Amino acid sequence: MSRWEPNTRERLLDAALGLFGERGYDSVTVAEITDRAGLTKRTFFRHFTDKREVLFAGQEMLSRILADAIAAAPEAASPAAAVGGALAAAAAEFGPERRERARRVQAVVAGQSDLRERGLLKRATLTAAMAGALRERGVPDPAATLAAELGGLAFWTAFERWTAPANERGFAELAAEALAELIAATADLD
Amino acid sequence: MSRWEPNTRERLLDAALGLFGERGYDSVTVAEITDRAGLTKRTFFRHFTDKREVLFAGQEMLSRILADAIAAAPEAASPAAAVGGALAAAAAEFGPERRERARRVQAVVAGQSDLRERGLLKRATLTAAMAGALRERGVPDPAATLAAELGGLAFWTAFERWTAPANERGFAELAAEALAELIAATADLD
Repeated sequence: MSRWEPNTRERLLDAALGLFGERGYDSVTVAEITDRAGLTKRTFFRHFTDKREVLFAGQEMLSRILADAIAAAPEAASPAAAVGGALAAAAAEFGPERRERARRVQAVVAGQSDLRERGLLKRATLTAAMAGALRERGVPDPAATLAAELGGLAFWTAFERWTAPANERGFAELAAEALAELIAATADLD
Repeated sequence: MSRWEPNTRERLLDAALGLFGERGYDSVTVAEITDRAGLTKRTFFRHFTDKREVLFAGQEMLSRILADAIAAAPEAASPAAAVGGALAAAAAEFGPERRERARRVQAVVAGQSDLRERGLLKRATLTAAMAGALRERGVPDPAATLAAELGGLAFWTAFERWTAPANERGFAELAAEALAELIAATADLD
């Protein structure tokens, strides 16, 4: 069983993506999404506060996966190693069967400024979850903030490469590579 | 002369802050802001696309100051040195006479989720401006992205410390300190 509540959240997301693709994001209502998904509006609002949120389904779960993995890292793990483990844990949620849907979500979000803003908030939430988990491990600031920011950058770099048209590589490999590149680049700052 | 167009933008911002303080952000209209400022709605909309934007007056100018300073850094300057120079240039816009207004803006933004989202977009815009200017200097990615992210983190850390209730230190000093702390922390990642 996936931890993304696929039966409800993914059904709503797939119905929404179908409708957005046919008629554009703006003109589609929550009632139309639930009709197509064969669910009630009440069910929709049990999962999402508004139409925008359906596109970010799973982000809370993702924050939890990242934070839990950082908490579970070996005591001796460096901040970078703990963040690397978190990205590896998150990769389990980005199997090849999810890539096409992720691409479609990205295309809708890219086309709407309010969705792009909401997306930035979600990014900030993921980064804050990692920073909080690092502080819980005793990593002081600004090292905790820095490691979490690098983790967030690596995550979104990997996500963009993973959803790129020609890509066939897996998310785990791409995330590890992006994090390694960022950590290597810290040597060239000064 | 300041580069922040004080006569119009700051008058509108001060009128808006006064009204927001009296009646709350939500219930104040653009017409009320322009009435209080003694300006027309047309003038308002020549400067800002909506009510939210008045709270972020000067951010485009700030992006330009940061990018220009990075472009003007000595050819031999490291990415960190170029970003440090950009923060120093930006500090000229954060004199002590602007601190109280900045505090009031921060309080309004913190209280509204849509304003917090818009604020994140503005942060991302500043960081992107720095990253673009670093790439123009020939700094490759991910070093350019990394240096710009550190610059953004240093900027907002400094801004929070600068607006903290008991603070008396200047923005330039706080920004240099925050950037130095972040660069030092890169040594402890691994």
